[in-house]
Amino acid sequence: MESIEQILNFIVEIEKLKDVNRKTRPVGLERYENSAEHSWHVCISALMLKEYANEPVDIDRVIKMLLIHDLGEIDAGDTIIYASETPELKAKEEEGLKRILDLLPEGRAAQYLSLWHEFEEGESADAKFAKAVDRVPPLLHNLHDNGHSWQKHNVPKEKVFALNSRIASGSNDLWSVIEAKLNTAVETGILK
Amino acid sequence: MESIEQILNFIVEIEKLKDVNRKTRPVGLERYENSAEHSWHVCISALMLKEYANEPVDIDRVIKMLLIHDLGEIDAGDTIIYASETPELKAKEEEGLKRILDLLPEGRAAQYLSLWHEFEEGESADAKFAKAVDRVPPLLHNLHDNGHSWQKHNVPKEKVFALNSRIASGSNDLWSVIEAKLNTAVETGILK
Repeated sequence: MESIEQILNFIVEIEKLKDVNRKTRPVGLERYENSAEHSWHVCISALMLKEYANEPVDIDRVIKMLLIHDLGEIDAGDTIIYASETPELKAKEEEGLKRILDLLPEGRAAQYLSLWHEFEEGESADAKFAKAVDRVPPLLHNLHDNGHSWQKHNVPKEKVFALNSRIASGSNDLWSVIEAKLNTAVETGILK
Repeated sequence: MESIEQILNFIVEIEKLKDVNRKTRPVGLERYENSAEHSWHVCISALMLKEYANEPVDIDRVIKMLLIHDLGEIDAGDTIIYASETPELKAKEEEGLKRILDLLPEGRAAQYLSLWHEFEEGESADAKFAKAVDRVPPLLHNLHDNGHSWQKHNVPKEKVFALNSRIASGSNDLWSVIEAKLNTAVETGILK
């Protein structure tokens, strides 16, 4: 019963992710997205897009990776992907993730910390695909919101293409479709 | 590529779940929870509580069930669990879910519709556990929020105990811990 109490404390603590705001707005909404609803969105997106991964992936591991990938933001906050991800920031995220995982019963933290490292390193097939999917919703937000976040944060098209072309490491097919949409965004002037 | 376009349309459409408000507030927040962030929360809760299921569960199926369990609310809206779940409401949810799943490439909808039916019927081990976990966060919200939603919707303690004792069908251990918390809530007067 003590273990269940610990897990319930964990469940309450991670609610704070619902109060971490991201830099884009869900399509049709005036408010910014939070990292908890984003986490749900990328899990279901990965599930539906799994057939398009370059290499076979274990979708159940991918989903677990994406369920926990932003927990470190509770302490570190969300940073726009176009800002350079400094080692200091990543260290702060890792520290935050450890603090939260330590609320769980003994012996549970290590597997999730290791899954987070795998995601961050982005080298395994699962991590490459998870990272590719993680980039999709904010791009769709910008594309449906007149480039709101790109413009607000002065992100030039070169940076948008350079950073998001990494989607191709997880899924060439997905990147082809997204790349075409970004080209259209340049033509219509919402991405400069 | 046509299939990927269809999936991206689905990904944009399901964003609407971020605008479906529930009846309780995340711990520490003044605003109501939305069904998208709730879906993330129950997936990660299920993952951490899986050892306490009465019968062995396939946690990957449970997570998929919980990822999609509220999609029908985009069209049907969220209803407080203490209001009776009428056949009309369930039919509306099913219709909404079908509309959304039909955005996916052909041949994809059936498996998720069947998973949703399994969840709603609540008879398989996976569904019993998923339904048990689904009840936990709103109870924690009320317990940390002076019974805000119970009081706002005039839900008497008899109804709270009757409805949530079903948690025991998925996990006796979890229900024991929650039941003790509800008893304390009655003693302190936040649940009447």
